[in-house]
Amino acid sequence: MADQTHCPKQQCSGKLWGGRFAEQTAASVESFTESISYDWRLYRHDIMGSKAHAKMLAKQGLISGEERDAIISGLTEIEQEIRDGRFQFRVELEDIHMNIEKALTERIGAAGEKLHTARSRNDQVALDIRLYLRDEAAELDRLLAEVQRAFARQARVNLGVIMPGYTHMQRAQPVLLAHHLLAYVEMFGRDRERLADCLKRLNVLPLGAAALAGTGLPIDREFVAKELGFPAITANSMDTTADRDFALEFLFCLSVTQLHLSRMAEEFVLWASKEFGFISIGDQYCTGSSIMPQKKNPDIPELIRGKSGRVAGALVSLLMTMKGLPMTYNRDMQEDKEQLFDALDTVKASLSITAELLANSSFNGGRMRDATPGGFMTATDLADYLVKKNLPFRQAHRVVGEIVAFCQQRDAELTELSLAEMRQFSALIDDDVFAVLSVEGSVNSRVSAGGTAGAKVAEALARAEQQLGIA
Amino acid sequence: MADQTHCPKQQCSGKLWGGRFAEQTAASVESFTESISYDWRLYRHDIMGSKAHAKMLAKQGLISGEERDAIISGLTEIEQEIRDGRFQFRVELEDIHMNIEKALTERIGAAGEKLHTARSRNDQVALDIRLYLRDEAAELDRLLAEVQRAFARQARVNLGVIMPGYTHMQRAQPVLLAHHLLAYVEMFGRDRERLADCLKRLNVLPLGAAALAGTGLPIDREFVAKELGFPAITANSMDTTADRDFALEFLFCLSVTQLHLSRMAEEFVLWASKEFGFISIGDQYCTGSSIMPQKKNPDIPELIRGKSGRVAGALVSLLMTMKGLPMTYNRDMQEDKEQLFDALDTVKASLSITAELLANSSFNGGRMRDATPGGFMTATDLADYLVKKNLPFRQAHRVVGEIVAFCQQRDAELTELSLAEMRQFSALIDDDVFAVLSVEGSVNSRVSAGGTAGAKVAEALARAEQQLGIA
Amino acid sequence: MADQTHCPKQQCSGKLWGGRFAEQTAASVESFTESISYDWRLYRHDIMGSKAHAKMLAKQGLISGEERDAIISGLTEIEQEIRDGRFQFRVELEDIHMNIEKALTERIGAAGEKLHTARSRNDQVALDIRLYLRDEAAELDRLLAEVQRAFARQARVNLGVIMPGYTHMQRAQPVLLAHHLLAYVEMFGRDRERLADCLKRLNVLPLGAAALAGTGLPIDREFVAKELGFPAITANSMDTTADRDFALEFLFCLSVTQLHLSRMAEEFVLWASKEFGFISIGDQYCTGSSIMPQKKNPDIPELIRGKSGRVAGALVSLLMTMKGLPMTYNRDMQEDKEQLFDALDTVKASLSITAELLANSSFNGGRMRDATPGGFMTATDLADYLVKKNLPFRQAHRVVGEIVAFCQQRDAELTELSLAEMRQFSALIDDDVFAVLSVEGSVNSRVSAGGTAGAKVAEALARAEQQLGIA
Amino acid sequence: MADQTHCPKQQCSGKLWGGRFAEQTAASVESFTESISYDWRLYRHDIMGSKAHAKMLAKQGLISGEERDAIISGLTEIEQEIRDGRFQFRVELEDIHMNIEKALTERIGAAGEKLHTARSRNDQVALDIRLYLRDEAAELDRLLAEVQRAFARQARVNLGVIMPGYTHMQRAQPVLLAHHLLAYVEMFGRDRERLADCLKRLNVLPLGAAALAGTGLPIDREFVAKELGFPAITANSMDTTADRDFALEFLFCLSVTQLHLSRMAEEFVLWASKEFGFISIGDQYCTGSSIMPQKKNPDIPELIRGKSGRVAGALVSLLMTMKGLPMTYNRDMQEDKEQLFDALDTVKASLSITAELLANSSFNGGRMRDATPGGFMTATDLADYLVKKNLPFRQAHRVVGEIVAFCQQRDAELTELSLAEMRQFSALIDDDVFAVLSVEGSVNSRVSAGGTAGAKVAEALARAEQQLGIA
Repeated sequence: MADQTHCPKQQCSGKLWGGRFAEQTAASVESFTESISYDWRLYRHDIMGSKAHAKMLAKQGLISGEERDAIISGLTEIEQEIRDGRFQFRVELEDIHMNIEKALTERIGAAGEKLHTARSRNDQVALDIRLYLRDEAAELDRLLAEVQRAFARQARVNLGVIMPGYTHMQRAQPVLLAHHLLAYVEMFGRDRERLADCLKRLNVLPLGAAALAGTGLPIDREFVAKELGFPAITANSMDTTADRDFALEFLFCLSVTQLHLSRMAEEFVLWASKEFGFISIGDQYCTGSSIMPQKKNPDIPELIRGKSGRVAGALVSLLMTMKGLPMTYNRDMQEDKEQLFDALDTVKASLSITAELLANSSFNGGRMRDATPGGFMTATDLADYLVKKNLPFRQAHRVVGEIVAFCQQRDAELTELSLAEMRQFSALIDDDVFAVLSVEGSVNSRVSAGGTAGAKVAEALARAEQQLGIA
Repeated sequence: MADQTHCPKQQCSGKLWGGRFAEQTAASVESFTESISYDWRLYRHDIMGSKAHAKMLAKQGLISGEERDAIISGLTEIEQEIRDGRFQFRVELEDIHMNIEKALTERIGAAGEKLHTARSRNDQVALDIRLYLRDEAAELDRLLAEVQRAFARQARVNLGVIMPGYTHMQRAQPVLLAHHLLAYVEMFGRDRERLADCLKRLNVLPLGAAALAGTGLPIDREFVAKELGFPAITANSMDTTADRDFALEFLFCLSVTQLHLSRMAEEFVLWASKEFGFISIGDQYCTGSSIMPQKKNPDIPELIRGKSGRVAGALVSLLMTMKGLPMTYNRDMQEDKEQLFDALDTVKASLSITAELLANSSFNGGRMRDATPGGFMTATDLADYLVKKNLPFRQAHRVVGEIVAFCQQRDAELTELSLAEMRQFSALIDDDVFAVLSVEGSVNSRVSAGGTAGAKVAEALARAEQQLGIA
Repeated sequence: MADQTHCPKQQCSGKLWGGRFAEQTAASVESFTESISYDWRLYRHDIMGSKAHAKMLAKQGLISGEERDAIISGLTEIEQEIRDGRFQFRVELEDIHMNIEKALTERIGAAGEKLHTARSRNDQVALDIRLYLRDEAAELDRLLAEVQRAFARQARVNLGVIMPGYTHMQRAQPVLLAHHLLAYVEMFGRDRERLADCLKRLNVLPLGAAALAGTGLPIDREFVAKELGFPAITANSMDTTADRDFALEFLFCLSVTQLHLSRMAEEFVLWASKEFGFISIGDQYCTGSSIMPQKKNPDIPELIRGKSGRVAGALVSLLMTMKGLPMTYNRDMQEDKEQLFDALDTVKASLSITAELLANSSFNGGRMRDATPGGFMTATDLADYLVKKNLPFRQAHRVVGEIVAFCQQRDAELTELSLAEMRQFSALIDDDVFAVLSVEGSVNSRVSAGGTAGAKVAEALARAEQQLGIA
Repeated sequence: MADQTHCPKQQCSGKLWGGRFAEQTAASVESFTESISYDWRLYRHDIMGSKAHAKMLAKQGLISGEERDAIISGLTEIEQEIRDGRFQFRVELEDIHMNIEKALTERIGAAGEKLHTARSRNDQVALDIRLYLRDEAAELDRLLAEVQRAFARQARVNLGVIMPGYTHMQRAQPVLLAHHLLAYVEMFGRDRERLADCLKRLNVLPLGAAALAGTGLPIDREFVAKELGFPAITANSMDTTADRDFALEFLFCLSVTQLHLSRMAEEFVLWASKEFGFISIGDQYCTGSSIMPQKKNPDIPELIRGKSGRVAGALVSLLMTMKGLPMTYNRDMQEDKEQLFDALDTVKASLSITAELLANSSFNGGRMRDATPGGFMTATDLADYLVKKNLPFRQAHRVVGEIVAFCQQRDAELTELSLAEMRQFSALIDDDVFAVLSVEGSVNSRVSAGGTAGAKVAEALARAEQQLGIA
């Protein structure tokens, strides 16, 4: 799913750490340990970090102004080459950091060999991932808002539509479809808040921890932080190189979002069934069967639902990988990236297609409304009616339970009973009861804060539209 | 691990929802569906919520002042009985809500039957868990701070102790033990921040959503929120009864904390080994062997480490349970509580014993210091020395790599080479090099922000002590 | 959910391994490390194992015949006391092994002190769990067969009932309900086979590995194996004490079974909805609502579905706990038991209630049959009809696709088209087509092995009944 | 990690199921739902299955002999093209099945359009995965045996080497290194058995289930099974298309293997540390540091250990994906393949590099032997010595515990005590005790079945070598 040029595995060149080694690395080892086949994705952030680092080195007198400029323009060229797919990645250079540094040195000479001054791959990779995830968090937020907008737009279109509200998959009380749709706006809103909180711990500069202990060279971490837009720097060099909490927390945020999508997807699949018939998904958003010519399958929501396992699995992977690792950096931690990339790709694609799916589906208000009279869905209203007449709630509940049982024996609905029949169960019932038993009456009575009454839902929708910029 | 009276399963009494049912619930069904055997833990919060609800009902004229007072004093009595272990729980009443309501009605009559007015178990259970977790979050924060303090105290005691810093479990660079210990203070500090963020989404009043759609009775949710100390109320009644994000996020916070503990525990187990010998755990915090009379085993850290699987497993359980659930409440969600309780018990017990363990262990500074000269741990310092003499870092790295290889052939350490031998590799090396190669010199040179130099660590420790109130 | 007496935590007595310890174990440590609060469940198997061990010790001359007899009768008494709830468990004795051995020694004196000769808790606990799980496997097999029988009985009762077969939750082709039910018989049949295979690796004697290295005392492991009905003994003492594969594999078997139950449960929940109306669950197997008097909720299948997360979570827990543990026994492994017990309790209760649920539900054949004419479910039959007339399948598929589209424009079903209308799409269609388009014709045509034709299903059912002993 | 040609996403051509659709599939939908970018891996097995299907169709008279031959030779050509990287995959054709069928029809015309007669993608994909996994199971078995051989070879080389055996990471009793290594041979042996059992449920022909209900066309499933080497056919068509147990079970087998590898890897990482110094890993199997010139890191075992999370995560993914899916095929199930492929790649690469790693590492017998005298590791032998003199084991354990405490006060080892000193604790001790306290004596005394005595280990090794074909 990556959006970028492919990195083939290739033949050898000098390792940047080979000084003390008597023997070449085995080819199978290179293949087993390399990360360039996936961490090339970090190239833009790796280069961004290196530029800020070079500026700091020059400011601190560790390199000259000319060296800084050579490094920066060399890195700019390399970035362009990678973007254009012209860059030759080399597996024997293991990772994106070494590939870029080596190319830089081949290009600008000794200045390139100074870039790694006062840093280590341990803090560099932490920097790259944090920068990368910071950008991805913004993109996720944008997509989540897009999905919220899609829900809000459908809520606007279907503002008056009444449908059954379900608990336990049983029709419970009539609600507005718009109310149901706005529930998802809430869920995805929480996802955005959670992500913003995750960002607080993510958006901290790790660079300067060096291998694990800090460095004796006179660096200026605050300067680098400012260059890269980090509001803070990490406080302990050992914690810095040992930490992958930000990756775990990001994966958790992704897992919850995909979980929310799975719940929506379940409803779409059900609603697209013949039995419910509540939704029509546009032909372009369905697929057919290779054997059954009549089939029109809701593959998109099914896949979205299925992919919730994939994202949660990524979280589990990293939790298990990190378990019991002693300080500080251990190579196990290299396993963080593929899980993050795959989970991110999955959630972004799912959000994106969800927004499209919503825009290309139509809700069958008629079918929904037709489903509301059955099932005694205004029984609670009848109980509340009795409560208002001062019958204790439990007694009211019991009275209504008996009326319902009576109806079921007669295969009748509540609205089909006569006043006399109802009064057999409670003398408190009067002919004002019939207004209460109507579906519209039921919906519009629920004016408690957060309730489904038309007026409340209209307010909630207006508020959502304003927050989402579609007012 | 619960701290409370036990709830045996028992013989029958009237269900509170039995009105329309022709047949009694089967005993096996009661046993399969009951939650009172574990949700009795919520009793205090259930009662707290019910009192606030009763006050609101009275304020809104839905019950009288006398009824409110009867409810409140009845609930106070029941709470006391439960606390004292005198309350008779009944399995056939399914859950804590029904057990309490039924007991209340048996005690105060019709007023008790009014308590459930304008609410449902769906929003009541959400309320109870939120109230419960809010308290538990405070307790967790307290325990995390206690563990931080235990680390800070050991850092203070061992402030000057030098030990090998490890990457890949290989000795890498000498560091201060205090620096290592403060890394954990950072980790647990992040856990506290994460928990505080989780609380923002947790600390919202759900009550008033009723079954799923809100209610037509004239309730005042803001009043209840204020009574219970909630800064906000939920915005959408359907989302409110469908939501278990707060439970998931809480479980994630717990998982990360136990993961951090597992890393510390791994180090304790290693350090307690004969091979490392870095720590002595007090006899009261070890156990012996049933067959090997000489054994003194670090069972506590082993168990802490092992329990990281348990807490992560609880998170996985609830993620999987919630997957694909349609709106709104589904009974599957009842599975949230046992996972939460077990994970909470586990993490709290682990934190508590960790603080004790730290207080009852002593670090063997001599062994640690003895481990630092070996393994070329000041090689980076030598490279940085050459960098300061303007050799590009990569060349410096290479030169030092060759010197290390030379040493290994001779089975010598860096400090054992003569100046002449070193100068064979680089003429930039002078006799000021020996200061650089010393372990103390290495440690104290790392003055970068967050580094291990004594001065920096002393600052960091003082800061931590102040924040933790042990300055 | 345990079926047994409760074990309170208590005050002190002498540890059995205390010889070299200068200080008493801290109370918090006892509480953190004890397992007696849950491993008391193993008492029967612990005693069974100890008796076999004592017989072997006597046979080998390591104890006398009198000592053996004293041990055996002492253990028999203790077993009876535990069974009757009269046994006093002591937390300070940590686990079931020590509790029983100590009680034995208090009862019979020095002979009791000889019981632990040539064994360790490390191999003893492995023995106990294996014995326990072996019995539980038999019980699971019995329950799985019971559930299979419940499905087979419903298949027999509903042998002629036709319903829509679904893919993607879309009506696809008509099938027999009995065929659908027998699919579950297959699933649970695989579970039984998997469990039988798991047993092969479980049913191996570990005792005799001692702490980790074997023993120098002249034991006879084959004799113990024979006594306890193990067909084999473990081959390597270090592997023996390090191994928990059997627990993982058992948890996996449990996870798959609960997963199968979750799929069945999903269908039950859907089918019990107003929209489907395919099943009526007996009142005793439903519960009501605390607020909506009319509700009849399918709580049992919902809970079964939800509990699939719990069982899978237990598997994840142990996988994560075992990750990266070095040889041989590590205390982390103590975490295996609670996961096993909870998962076992969950699956057994779910299977048991499933069998009851099936027996107390009735399928609404009329509703099911009514659902079959719609949705072009015999379109594949029409395609196959054309294939039989030698039209290549892909062309037939296309032709039928066009006919379906034509119907949809007219809001008609296939059976409502005239021959002439159909022949517009293919001249191969003749008036023998109408038999093909009938629902019954469709079902009964599918005579391929494993197909849904009545004759095939009758055969499959008869086979299942015979295997399940209900023929 | 795939070994095969890459499949770019491309522009459109006719869907094979498009007959009834009014609108084209959206590009984003194609991209979201396609599987060809990963399921191309199944091409060889897809073609193998199609050839067998074509032969059956011809035998049954559903196609002619000429058509069959055209299909078979067309498929052979396509297979060759894919193998050579010359085949043009098309994303708009969704999956490997459609890509191949479409290419076949373009090549051989109408005969190609007959290939899909009497089958569906639902049973075709089940067939492909089963065939694929069957081959992969054989490859895994080969690699597991290779790893077992690598362990056995090192056991042979190091047959006499004595090392500390550990429990709780504490030195417990001396053992032979060969015994320790053979413990892993046992673990991987169980993995092979478990895989063989998994194969029993995997190696069953699904084809013939068609979409879900079987087919009315006169197929012969037994013939196809025989052609493809399946010993059995599935019994119920609905179960057949709904089932992914085989994938779950395969993933579980992979998870346990990687878990075993993680335990070995943990030991390698520890043993490669300066503190242990038990193993030297060849330079080609280590990597260096970008900042610390002296570092030689055990990256391979670290990555192997870390990847255990990845494989377990894949299992969790599919468990969660399958949870609650109703009958029969749901598109969620498409998520099985990437998890399987990734887990397979991971485990195969890990096994392969493990065999190399073992062959290129050497154990430092001297260091190991030096580590055995310390730590009272023969204390159990002393206890057993007293047991042989008829002291009850518990008393012997206590006596030895006291002697150990006495030694610790004097900072002495057991062997350094005089007979008189020992006799203070028990008069049963005589001068034959010193033979018992020697490390070699201890090891060689453990002659119980599965014990570490030299003679037993030599037998076990010979047995392993014979089974592994390296005798």
